Amino acid sequence: MGQFITFEGIEGCGKTTQIRLLATALRHQGHDVIETREPGGCDIADQIRAVLLDAKNNRMTSPTELLLYAAARAQHVAEVIRPALDAGKTVLCDRFCDATLAYQGYGRQLDIDQITTLNAYACQGVRPDTTLLLDLPVEIGLGRARQRNEQHSGPNEDRFEQESLNFHQRIRQAYLQLADNEPQRFLIIDAQGKPQTVAERIASAMNTIIQPVPSS
Amino acid sequence: MGQFITFEGIEGCGKTTQIRLLATALRHQGHDVIETREPGGCDIADQIRAVLLDAKNNRMTSPTELLLYAAARAQHVAEVIRPALDAGKTVLCDRFCDATLAYQGYGRQLDIDQITTLNAYACQGVRPDTTLLLDLPVEIGLGRARQRNEQHSGPNEDRFEQESLNFHQRIRQAYLQLADNEPQRFLIIDAQGKPQTVAERIASAMNTIIQPVPSS
Repeated sequence: MGQFITFEGIEGCGKTTQIRLLATALRHQGHDVIETREPGGCDIADQIRAVLLDAKNNRMTSPTELLLYAAARAQHVAEVIRPALDAGKTVLCDRFCDATLAYQGYGRQLDIDQITTLNAYACQGVRPDTTLLLDLPVEIGLGRARQRNEQHSGPNEDRFEQESLNFHQRIRQAYLQLADNEPQRFLIIDAQGKPQTVAERIASAMNTIIQPVPSS
Repeated sequence: MGQFITFEGIEGCGKTTQIRLLATALRHQGHDVIETREPGGCDIADQIRAVLLDAKNNRMTSPTELLLYAAARAQHVAEVIRPALDAGKTVLCDRFCDATLAYQGYGRQLDIDQITTLNAYACQGVRPDTTLLLDLPVEIGLGRARQRNEQHSGPNEDRFEQESLNFHQRIRQAYLQLADNEPQRFLIIDAQGKPQTVAERIASAMNTIIQPVPSS
């Protein structure tokens, strides 16, 4: 079985950049690496992602949202993550079950037990070996996210980035709580500073977890 | 509270036609009637329906399918069905929870308890008052469905109508079993014959359930 590593954190914490940098570093060490993301990661889950993130869908209820995340995850796990792990690959995934707990559970205050049940059903036994929580103050994260959105698509923000500062502060606290509940799985990484600085922190934290593949 | 009436049955059993005919008859009797369908019935659920019924999505796993049906239902109940019932309207719905039990539970043999849990979560307490099961032999239903598809869109059948005869026979039996489990909710209607004949059978069965609205 390969290793399953998930990246979590608030908007603008730098997950996408750090996944790319870690993937490059691990490939240099001889690992076969898959980079993926949630919601999405395969064609059917991407179609579900489009429904979830469409800013026009502002009448979506919280149970609908939760069920759509679970549906996208079920497909992604079955079609991408499990086959890659079975083939011995290292899977780096941008958001996973913890994101649903943080955003829908603590953020929108949906029932945590219900989310846990749906996550378990969607994952069919697949669990991250390691979760990197990229932690930084909400103001910095949202500032970065806003800048990125303006560069890529003008001033339209997607449905989630329209949420209030207070909401994102609850998400940050939720992630820290989840990390506190499972210290053996989570690594909390200070995500402030330049991407290369954060990448060095991650590399150092991962040193004991992923060893270079011995050349044959 | 208005009355919630669902229509169930195999492909080609005539649900769409019969809903239209019953809606017309009830409106003549003074009822305020909403006609709707699953999966779908509102914009967000229609987007989910498009993902579910796209014949290209043939890699969709059963858990994904089940979660998508639940997501579409959650939105449909919250946005359309519950508000209409609260406003005293009569809601006629083409397929509902029983369809998921029949197709995913008995048809694809997914866990019935899991389906029941997801249905309950999606419906948040909304339940049909009456379910009309339009029953007919599978060969006749599929023959009608095939004819309809050829008329409307050429020989391409959607994902569900591609299933085997044996699968549809399991669905018919499943519906009859569900009706047997809840005789107080289900009315089994012989769906063979001309649309007007079937409509008369439905009208006669519904006579004791829905009375004309007294003119003031």
